[in-house]
Amino acid sequence: MTRSPLTTGWLLLGLPLLLLDFQSNGVLASVAPREVPKNFPSISNDKMKKRLTEESMSQNIRQMEYAVRGKIVIAAEQIRDELSSENHPYDFDHVVFTNIGNPQSVGQKPLTWPRQVMALVDLPDHVGVNHPLASQMFPADAIRRAKEIKAAMACGSSGAYSHSKGVKLLREDVVKFISHRDGGVQADPEDIFLTNGASTGIVMILNALLADSTCGVLIPIPQYPIYSATIDQFGGNKVGYFLDEANGWDLNLQELERALQEARSQGINVNSMVLINPGNPTGGVLKKKTIKEVVKFCVKHKLVLLADEVYQENVYDEKAQFVSVKRVAHELGVLQKDKLELASFHSTSKGVFGECGRRGGYMELVGFDPVVKDHIYKLASSGLCSSLNGQVMTALMCRGPEPGEESYDMHEAEKQSIYQSLKRRSQIVTDGLNRIPGFSCQPAQGAMYSFPAVQLPEAAVEAAKIAGLSPDTLYALSLLERTGICVVPASGFSQKEGRFGFRTTFLPSEAEMERCVELFRSHHEEFCQKYA
Amino acid sequence: MTRSPLTTGWLLLGLPLLLLDFQSNGVLASVAPREVPKNFPSISNDKMKKRLTEESMSQNIRQMEYAVRGKIVIAAEQIRDELSSENHPYDFDHVVFTNIGNPQSVGQKPLTWPRQVMALVDLPDHVGVNHPLASQMFPADAIRRAKEIKAAMACGSSGAYSHSKGVKLLREDVVKFISHRDGGVQADPEDIFLTNGASTGIVMILNALLADSTCGVLIPIPQYPIYSATIDQFGGNKVGYFLDEANGWDLNLQELERALQEARSQGINVNSMVLINPGNPTGGVLKKKTIKEVVKFCVKHKLVLLADEVYQENVYDEKAQFVSVKRVAHELGVLQKDKLELASFHSTSKGVFGECGRRGGYMELVGFDPVVKDHIYKLASSGLCSSLNGQVMTALMCRGPEPGEESYDMHEAEKQSIYQSLKRRSQIVTDGLNRIPGFSCQPAQGAMYSFPAVQLPEAAVEAAKIAGLSPDTLYALSLLERTGICVVPASGFSQKEGRFGFRTTFLPSEAEMERCVELFRSHHEEFCQKYA
Repeated sequence: MTRSPLTTGWLLLGLPLLLLDFQSNGVLASVAPREVPKNFPSISNDKMKKRLTEESMSQNIRQMEYAVRGKIVIAAEQIRDELSSENHPYDFDHVVFTNIGNPQSVGQKPLTWPRQVMALVDLPDHVGVNHPLASQMFPADAIRRAKEIKAAMACGSSGAYSHSKGVKLLREDVVKFISHRDGGVQADPEDIFLTNGASTGIVMILNALLADSTCGVLIPIPQYPIYSATIDQFGGNKVGYFLDEANGWDLNLQELERALQEARSQGINVNSMVLINPGNPTGGVLKKKTIKEVVKFCVKHKLVLLADEVYQENVYDEKAQFVSVKRVAHELGVLQKDKLELASFHSTSKGVFGECGRRGGYMELVGFDPVVKDHIYKLASSGLCSSLNGQVMTALMCRGPEPGEESYDMHEAEKQSIYQSLKRRSQIVTDGLNRIPGFSCQPAQGAMYSFPAVQLPEAAVEAAKIAGLSPDTLYALSLLERTGICVVPASGFSQKEGRFGFRTTFLPSEAEMERCVELFRSHHEEFCQKYA
Repeated sequence: MTRSPLTTGWLLLGLPLLLLDFQSNGVLASVAPREVPKNFPSISNDKMKKRLTEESMSQNIRQMEYAVRGKIVIAAEQIRDELSSENHPYDFDHVVFTNIGNPQSVGQKPLTWPRQVMALVDLPDHVGVNHPLASQMFPADAIRRAKEIKAAMACGSSGAYSHSKGVKLLREDVVKFISHRDGGVQADPEDIFLTNGASTGIVMILNALLADSTCGVLIPIPQYPIYSATIDQFGGNKVGYFLDEANGWDLNLQELERALQEARSQGINVNSMVLINPGNPTGGVLKKKTIKEVVKFCVKHKLVLLADEVYQENVYDEKAQFVSVKRVAHELGVLQKDKLELASFHSTSKGVFGECGRRGGYMELVGFDPVVKDHIYKLASSGLCSSLNGQVMTALMCRGPEPGEESYDMHEAEKQSIYQSLKRRSQIVTDGLNRIPGFSCQPAQGAMYSFPAVQLPEAAVEAAKIAGLSPDTLYALSLLERTGICVVPASGFSQKEGRFGFRTTFLPSEAEMERCVELFRSHHEEFCQKYA
């Protein structure tokens, strides 16, 4: 039952195995092709016969990286499968997946009422809202809302393609939510695109922005890899601005100016900027003052602002508060003066809904040239429409049961319970990580992640170099093999030179997160001894 | 209540109005910017202030066309809204949308059992499969299947992101379906990508294929515009091969060779070919012999073959039969010899399910370089996964209730009823159109469309030219204004020079389709008199 995978032998012997597996079943996400060892079994004979090879395919796709579901996850899935065998070599009995913000995959229960409404929307009337037992099996407010939604759909069916931007009524619910959130700032259903999660909105707008290989987008370092991956996919330039780790991953205006000027002096046509607030992977929540500076910066330099606000409901720090970019832009008057092009994203996957499987979300486009918006609408139309279940869930996230309705109290209680537990877990993990010598972790004011910096022994950095891995990939592989915890190496989100670490969610249960903290500690000790 | 919109006055007066509307609310899909009249109210002052303009945005997106949801549809939606007013100027009381294969939007009822299973999968156990009334409200086989599906999902929840290719069990259902359909030819769950409709699969594979602006794809003329739009989007070359209208839109090998050689002689790196069978918009069903020729052609010229088989269950002609490309390739032995790279697509949106709103479907990749497949997996991963509701519906399409199970008879009866009605409607429309002087329509052996050629008066062609419209756009606008029927101009699917016509679905009810045929006839007479 025991083996010591952390010998140099494991590194040299185990690695080709992992790479082999990853060639045949896995994903090349976080490893550039040059990292494959020279003596790797060649498949060039086979490849010669193919039309589409790594050489002939789109090099943008070949080179794009996507770490959240990359190498470590593939190894983790393999280990999970091995664990079902009795004589597996591991010291643990299950893998803890903390690599991805996927709450319901690690035990978070779906909110009851939205699922009831959605099921009733999908059930044909005679076996759903009109079934004689419906009123006994479903709460009255779920039946009412389902009927309202069905009435707004073509022939009452969620099985029809909707308008390419989404069902009008559901977009109107989004608009009410935005307007209420922003203290009454108006919103327009024609500016709303219901999307498959936030992802398809982000991809559409970057697709429009990246006109050619000179175009560039300011993105934070560290950032969520959908930005780097999508910019790679469209052949644009990633222009990184460093967040200020020492100050809770704050955003610094001078650093923004530096990044922009440096890129422009290199001939990069920087036309847009990504802001992620609350931060992923950092967990930081930006102050209103900072957002004001960012808006002014974008107006001054004529940058389209992409506001990734999918964690807007995940704020745990009592002193922090989420303020939308739209609200700030309105308060500054730049929206009214039509001086800012702002794309904002939200999703059903995060918050307390955690409805990732729905692929629900929206993009709001404010201040865009109407002709450009029409072209984006055309692009959305070529994919017909987003998932109707995602559309319904987005609307239910934006408008729950009303106070006084049958499910109101239960719905609010379920939401609070998830929120309070997330808040406790954010504390457990940050505090626990900061107690480990060699770890340093900014508080997770928001989102679902902790993003500690980890000091690695010089010998480990050297060993990683020899193995053709980033040092924190070596570390994450070791953590996985020794403890069963699957994290994402910090390098997957981009890093300052010499900073190492990882991102972990705090989505598993509180007891599990407490266990994980202890494992992070014991593994780090062992790892440092190994490479002392 | 009456006006005569078909005067020259309407053409000259009405058109700027339509274009105006379409600039502010609509989509530029089928009209290139040069077609906007010179005297069109300028928004250049406003545009000057914007960072993202029609000039600075991606020109690939700007130039891509997507007619199925283009100009005519926007006009149709506007008219539909006008019809709610009492003193509208139209001779009809509702718009008939035959522009898009969207069965449930025009009255097709969803199949009951799959919706019951899906609803139970989505309902939390305590209010779903374990609710004391569940067994009275839901059939036992729906409850059993829902439990089986839930057990295969992370923590039993459809709210979790799945594996990027889709839930393994659901892919296994797809594999069984394919293998059964193809007479036992093996399939592998690792080759299956569950996708949002067929669209996201098509976009992924074209994205990988179109490495640079020299790359090209053979596509049929006429074709379904997702191919032209996506090739435009990635900056590749559309290499058209003409289908043989006189022979039921058959595919002609000499024409394929001509198209390929001509493109290659122009320096286009043609690396792939699209086959749509049954045909969209043509309704043709290819013979096995023809598919054999295509497979051999692709092997000979080393072309990746994209088989769009989303209408595989929509075959109405007793003499025709759907045979999959995979089966043919297997019978020819080229699959076993690893000589063909084949991507096949299927969807829940068509067939008798018509579940467009689910965005369910799959892509099967056979014979691809494993490394390339890994890169495509990485691309899929960057969008996390397809809609879980779409995944569930895809599996239920592939595996219905078993004979002897509670819902089997009802499910089969519902499927037959839809199928037989579609079959009758295909006949009603084709026969009806062929009785109109000046119309010529190949039989709709399959799919959901009739695609008549319509002889237009010379004066109409001239008038269209003056108005900056394609002649069949002029015709479709006229048809819409006079009858309320919304079709897609044939030019939206690409056409032989001088051929005009439109595509209509035969999805509205049989009575409605009979009424439409009569309206096609009366409008055509009127139109020809007007432009005599």
